[in-house]
Amino acid sequence: MSSRQKADHGSEAAVTIYDTTLRDGAQGENVHFSLPEKLRIVQKLDEVGVPYIEGGWPGSNPKDLMFFQEVSRLSGRMSRIVAFGSTRRASLSVEQDPQIRMLLDAGTETVAVFGKTWLLHVRKVLRVTPEENLAMIRDTVAFLKACGKEVIYDAEHAFDGYQDDPQYALDCLAVASEAGADWVVLCDTNGGSLPERVAELTRLTRQKVRSRVGIHTHNDGDLAVANALAAVQAGATQVQGTINGYGERTGNCNLISTIANLEIKLNRRALPPGALARLQELSYFVDEIANLAPNPRAPFVGRCAFAHKGGTHVNAIGKVFRSYEHIEPEIVGNRRRVLVGELSGRSNIVLKARELGLVLREDDPRTREALQQIKAMEGKGYEFEAADASFELLLRRLLLPYPSFFQLVEYHVSIRSFPGKEYEVSEATVKLSVKGRTVYTVAEGDGPIHALDQALRGGLERFYPELARVGLRDYKVRILGQMGGSGAATRVLVESSDGLTSWTTVGVSTNIVEASWEALVDSIEYWLLRLERSSGAPRSPTS
Amino acid sequence: MSSRQKADHGSEAAVTIYDTTLRDGAQGENVHFSLPEKLRIVQKLDEVGVPYIEGGWPGSNPKDLMFFQEVSRLSGRMSRIVAFGSTRRASLSVEQDPQIRMLLDAGTETVAVFGKTWLLHVRKVLRVTPEENLAMIRDTVAFLKACGKEVIYDAEHAFDGYQDDPQYALDCLAVASEAGADWVVLCDTNGGSLPERVAELTRLTRQKVRSRVGIHTHNDGDLAVANALAAVQAGATQVQGTINGYGERTGNCNLISTIANLEIKLNRRALPPGALARLQELSYFVDEIANLAPNPRAPFVGRCAFAHKGGTHVNAIGKVFRSYEHIEPEIVGNRRRVLVGELSGRSNIVLKARELGLVLREDDPRTREALQQIKAMEGKGYEFEAADASFELLLRRLLLPYPSFFQLVEYHVSIRSFPGKEYEVSEATVKLSVKGRTVYTVAEGDGPIHALDQALRGGLERFYPELARVGLRDYKVRILGQMGGSGAATRVLVESSDGLTSWTTVGVSTNIVEASWEALVDSIEYWLLRLERSSGAPRSPTS
Repeated sequence: MSSRQKADHGSEAAVTIYDTTLRDGAQGENVHFSLPEKLRIVQKLDEVGVPYIEGGWPGSNPKDLMFFQEVSRLSGRMSRIVAFGSTRRASLSVEQDPQIRMLLDAGTETVAVFGKTWLLHVRKVLRVTPEENLAMIRDTVAFLKACGKEVIYDAEHAFDGYQDDPQYALDCLAVASEAGADWVVLCDTNGGSLPERVAELTRLTRQKVRSRVGIHTHNDGDLAVANALAAVQAGATQVQGTINGYGERTGNCNLISTIANLEIKLNRRALPPGALARLQELSYFVDEIANLAPNPRAPFVGRCAFAHKGGTHVNAIGKVFRSYEHIEPEIVGNRRRVLVGELSGRSNIVLKARELGLVLREDDPRTREALQQIKAMEGKGYEFEAADASFELLLRRLLLPYPSFFQLVEYHVSIRSFPGKEYEVSEATVKLSVKGRTVYTVAEGDGPIHALDQALRGGLERFYPELARVGLRDYKVRILGQMGGSGAATRVLVESSDGLTSWTTVGVSTNIVEASWEALVDSIEYWLLRLERSSGAPRSPTS
Repeated sequence: MSSRQKADHGSEAAVTIYDTTLRDGAQGENVHFSLPEKLRIVQKLDEVGVPYIEGGWPGSNPKDLMFFQEVSRLSGRMSRIVAFGSTRRASLSVEQDPQIRMLLDAGTETVAVFGKTWLLHVRKVLRVTPEENLAMIRDTVAFLKACGKEVIYDAEHAFDGYQDDPQYALDCLAVASEAGADWVVLCDTNGGSLPERVAELTRLTRQKVRSRVGIHTHNDGDLAVANALAAVQAGATQVQGTINGYGERTGNCNLISTIANLEIKLNRRALPPGALARLQELSYFVDEIANLAPNPRAPFVGRCAFAHKGGTHVNAIGKVFRSYEHIEPEIVGNRRRVLVGELSGRSNIVLKARELGLVLREDDPRTREALQQIKAMEGKGYEFEAADASFELLLRRLLLPYPSFFQLVEYHVSIRSFPGKEYEVSEATVKLSVKGRTVYTVAEGDGPIHALDQALRGGLERFYPELARVGLRDYKVRILGQMGGSGAATRVLVESSDGLTSWTTVGVSTNIVEASWEALVDSIEYWLLRLERSSGAPRSPTS
């Protein structure tokens, strides 16, 4: 059975995906979600068809109750929202325990509670007897069932607990199941288990309990996904994880990789038809909301996942598409990329140019010249892999020299702080030559780059009024190389948009303002050039 | 058997680690090594005890020959350097093939050659008959053995090939082994295999060939490490990979995770005694040379791998160290960290303060105030998790108010480009008040931040001459949030050093110059404060 066949379901049991990006994922370093952001993520997950979404832990973060209130107002939702909590406190009855009360106040159909499975924790962290812990599990699950909830029981430290005292761990699982838990989820809370151990306990649990069995892994051993797949193959039918693997320490099981593997390699349905092709979109969406840079090397959905650099590979790819790709990129919403870089051969340039709609032959001397220019600029820090628009301008300047739309005469940027005041003022003046005329503009901004951008556009918009549609969407700065002082080369990537499409340009200099200037100028030139090409005639600036 | 025991070798076969960071790793996007950088990496790998280091592919990159020349001059080396190449061209005899000649010219004791195992590639990419391919493998291996080399045969696409035509794939492996290959390495070149398949073919290969068996995986399915471990458990005794998992597309097998799992979880010796504790050092070293930001969530060695954020976890950690850590961080050269952040409870602050040598009690009202300040600032974009020195200053200002060393009156930064010239000039003026005196300095720099830094220090050094020892080591900029224009908050992290230790400070503003100013000021204050504390008496500036 070729691994390349489209997901062909029906032969194996479906797997239920349980997303805890908003709860466990939010425990990751540098991951925070505001309430509106959480709601946007819920909507996206629901659209894609994720069946369970764990939204928060009201007993630990009381403001999570607001999330549950708001999310219940979202209409047309199919996913089940889950409130998370823990077994009752030792000293309280379940009815008296305020955090159980808050769990109920969340008003969800489904709740998830975690309890101790490891004697070490029972004795040293909870400081109760083994029997008391069992009672805590039993009382909590039974109570929540009696309240009409679907109950998911998370057995914390299941694998460490089983290793330490197998009988006690199984007793904990059995008690939860007998009390009515709809699911018993084995959690590798420390994240250090190996797939064989995970499969073993999963198999055993399936034999011992009536509840359906789930798996919740962490990536401390770099094996979170492997462990989840091993559990599924041993009979688990629920996988808990997060989008992009966010979470405490090294993160949770990455649902993106897991869903892709389940559907494409193991023939298990995990999401509704059509969802698989939205995996990259889902991955980027959550990264954007979390304000985290996407991992370019992320399996399946990363920008590099189907990016080919070495000359041999690119040559072969041209011949047989399956050669160096384990699946077709489009299956998960990704696409093939040919990288232009140091190891590039001319075939890379030709293929890249073709991607951009330019016809270029390998034996054309300009191809070699383009390659040399690219290598020289990359040596200085330019990065064309992300800055497609700058690369396209480079090729166009070589192949189809175009008249310049404007030229810089000079610019001046000034930042001044004020004694005793909490603000500073950034001002930029830009002097341009546009079709023989001198234009001199001044503008202020929130910072030097903003001021420069405003001044540049202010000067050009009277000549090219369409520029009003173009705006900066994103701006990335990277200092290249270690530093002695702030003197290392700075690379700036600017993403611009006209509301319909977006494009990225690059600039490099030891001076961040100069690097930004380069990227801004490329951005505007690129768009004006495109405007000219689509109108069919060279643009003369409005006088 | 507890997974926490120190690596206890002798019970299972040792595993040979084969590093291809310099060859396969260098095919990763954004990864380039200059010749001196390659030599530094060789020296570090050798120090740590990595037995095989694949250095380059002379037949593909002729300048790699220089690497092999230079590396042979390095004295005291124990590692075996390996030159990489491919089986002979179809149309040439092995003696005539120039890339085989270059392989020999590299002058290494050991060579590695890859050959086709997948009929698809044999027919469509190489365009030869199956028999011819077998002859190419046989001739190449036999020839290199006759030249006195240790020969490692890499069976490209071994798993896809076996799935497509099992007999042919096994024939390829057998032919290499019979021709004398010392090792036959199964390569999951597309990276999409599952652990069971990997184990199956490994077991079969071990039965069929006399050579020792190795494994070479890629991370396209997020299973590179799991696949390598599965192969080892099925009898492979060599693992090929890269430091930090660099490589084409999603990367190669991450040797860091693999070595840690092999030694700590599977009781296999992979490196000499003492090397395991240097894993983090090795990981950071290669990242630094590659000029790539370390992955904070990297298993075992990442900055977050043992970083605890959620209140419950931190509480438990305080009680039982094993609670939420699968191994002791020090085993791999890492350390535990307590994160101060949104989910922080007061116990985080207290523990963090203790880390810094400050005594603070949980019920102290200042603890709550610190927590509130931190949350408020983090809401604006400050990040204390990386900026320990700024955090320490924040706590000290609350607990032990210190007299300010200087105050800003005003600053002015100016960047001016020149008509028709290729450079710009950045100038900064800084007016300070130091112990009642006004100091007004001007300086130039490679960019606005450099100029500001020079002006600030220039003004202070006459009062605090020791500041001459302090320099900027690194400077990171991050634009927070998506943008409409360049107006989003900018966060700057500055790493400074006095030649002995280093410390990191943070600044946030929509204005990058202002953000940098904050971080620079914190950096200097932090060091002056430390100087004062170590001298035992408050510093009065040299008049």
